[in-house]
Amino acid sequence: MKYIYGIDIGGTFVKLGRFDETGTLLEKWQLPVDASKYAERMAPYVAGAVLVDMERMGISEGEVAGIGIGCPGTIDEKGVIHGAENLQMDQISMTGSMRRFLPMEIRMENDANCAALGEYIFGEGKAYDSMAFLTLGTGVGGGIIASGSLLTGAHRCAAEFGHMQVDEAESTPCSCGRYGCLEQYCSARGITRMSGGFSPVEIFTAMQYIDETTEPLKSAALRTYERFSEKLAKGCALIADVADPAVFVIGGGVSNAGDVVVKRARELYRTFVYPGAKNTEIRISKLKNDAGIYGAAALIGHFSEKNRKV
Amino acid sequence: MKYIYGIDIGGTFVKLGRFDETGTLLEKWQLPVDASKYAERMAPYVAGAVLVDMERMGISEGEVAGIGIGCPGTIDEKGVIHGAENLQMDQISMTGSMRRFLPMEIRMENDANCAALGEYIFGEGKAYDSMAFLTLGTGVGGGIIASGSLLTGAHRCAAEFGHMQVDEAESTPCSCGRYGCLEQYCSARGITRMSGGFSPVEIFTAMQYIDETTEPLKSAALRTYERFSEKLAKGCALIADVADPAVFVIGGGVSNAGDVVVKRARELYRTFVYPGAKNTEIRISKLKNDAGIYGAAALIGHFSEKNRKV
Repeated sequence: MKYIYGIDIGGTFVKLGRFDETGTLLEKWQLPVDASKYAERMAPYVAGAVLVDMERMGISEGEVAGIGIGCPGTIDEKGVIHGAENLQMDQISMTGSMRRFLPMEIRMENDANCAALGEYIFGEGKAYDSMAFLTLGTGVGGGIIASGSLLTGAHRCAAEFGHMQVDEAESTPCSCGRYGCLEQYCSARGITRMSGGFSPVEIFTAMQYIDETTEPLKSAALRTYERFSEKLAKGCALIADVADPAVFVIGGGVSNAGDVVVKRARELYRTFVYPGAKNTEIRISKLKNDAGIYGAAALIGHFSEKNRKV
Repeated sequence: MKYIYGIDIGGTFVKLGRFDETGTLLEKWQLPVDASKYAERMAPYVAGAVLVDMERMGISEGEVAGIGIGCPGTIDEKGVIHGAENLQMDQISMTGSMRRFLPMEIRMENDANCAALGEYIFGEGKAYDSMAFLTLGTGVGGGIIASGSLLTGAHRCAAEFGHMQVDEAESTPCSCGRYGCLEQYCSARGITRMSGGFSPVEIFTAMQYIDETTEPLKSAALRTYERFSEKLAKGCALIADVADPAVFVIGGGVSNAGDVVVKRARELYRTFVYPGAKNTEIRISKLKNDAGIYGAAALIGHFSEKNRKV
């Protein structure tokens, strides 16, 4: 019996999961992250958490098949992180540092790609041959699975869905400096911005009980929801025009509000997309916050054949 | 010695090429097509052309490794053509009909995908690991090569670049019924529409000799070229945000005007795209009108390893 650790490094928590070789999640837990304090210290922090778990469970080095890690930013072939500014982790060699503590297979991938892989193998994408995954969180990211594997792109920036332009008339700049990026409408931050201060939960809850919702939330919810849906649908249509996935899966914190998140977008998508792809479904993530650790574990384990049963 | 026929069915001509097994084009020729007369008759017409060539060259059935065909529309797994309305070839089983005359391997693919494959293996994409190919002809089509093979999509409509929305303010409908499709600006028809009647050749020639160009062409060329370039750049940026190819190659009749076609678009692309992909080159097709027959032949031959040397 061998174990696999799947780790998802975020701006608020490091999430960890211990899996068996068949991809069954045995235990999961999380540790707080103070983004201002980490950078170089992230590797020993994460490695320490794994070592503590091994000690507690009586797992030897030889019993660990490997450690998969999802992390913000661009991860190059050498396991060096680029541009994860939120975590002050630009130019950090994460796998190299971790191997000093844990001499086993360690693989890294961008966090959104990891979540996509997890959702494809174990979650809502399980019944499909290809998938586009959009994660609507603080920002908007994503991943594409085609021909059974991640489409990472020539510069490792495929599926940067958050920065597709979906509004030509936008006058407020995106964090990237450009205007009209999908992230400006479909991230948690974007929803709060468009609604004049309401949270995504407030907006989506209001939409479910709109007749019992009072002003000013009612108007804000109706207006924001339509705009959010239009941009999400437009983003999906553009993705379909390029990659034509078999299904869209929507994850990230915003998706926790459930089916209402995609209800209107589904209708609009059909009118925006090239007709051949108009029946592609838009679904809500099944694994929710666990998609990342599942996908990270999948970087090590070869779960695809075993788990992808319709 | 075995031969491969690569055939590219278009609205005006059927182009044919006879290749050897190494992918060398031995001879090419073309036959006129009267779109109003074909449909069911296309299969015997094309098969007849191959049989005549075999007879003329003394090639036996056993010496033909196979026949690859590129054709407009969507081609399903059974070789049935859907939606090639220009050729009145909707719901036509091309490969089935051809096999009655030529009992050998016959494979079909969408014409833009074929051209992409040809350009990737033999042309401008040869030095790259992935590629997005845009064909700017009467309409706009394309193909994506990722991980060494065509990305065809779940509904066989990946790389439908012509119908990505790149203008939200457009008031003239596209042939597809929607508004602001890339095809409305970057096809030959689109250029003529934007310029008030000038041909693509007139516009691009004027841009190369703008100081010696007189009104009204001068103003039309300046205005049309900027708009064409902006939309082409925007389309490429959206493709990069989704698929992040290693290179863009621009083919189709419009690209025959040469480097001027992409000169301004290259500059604009850098400002539109996600920064990680801003150095992706936009190049002009090398194989020009022959890309389709090369790609069709590549459906049969396994040329990739042999020919893709930098």
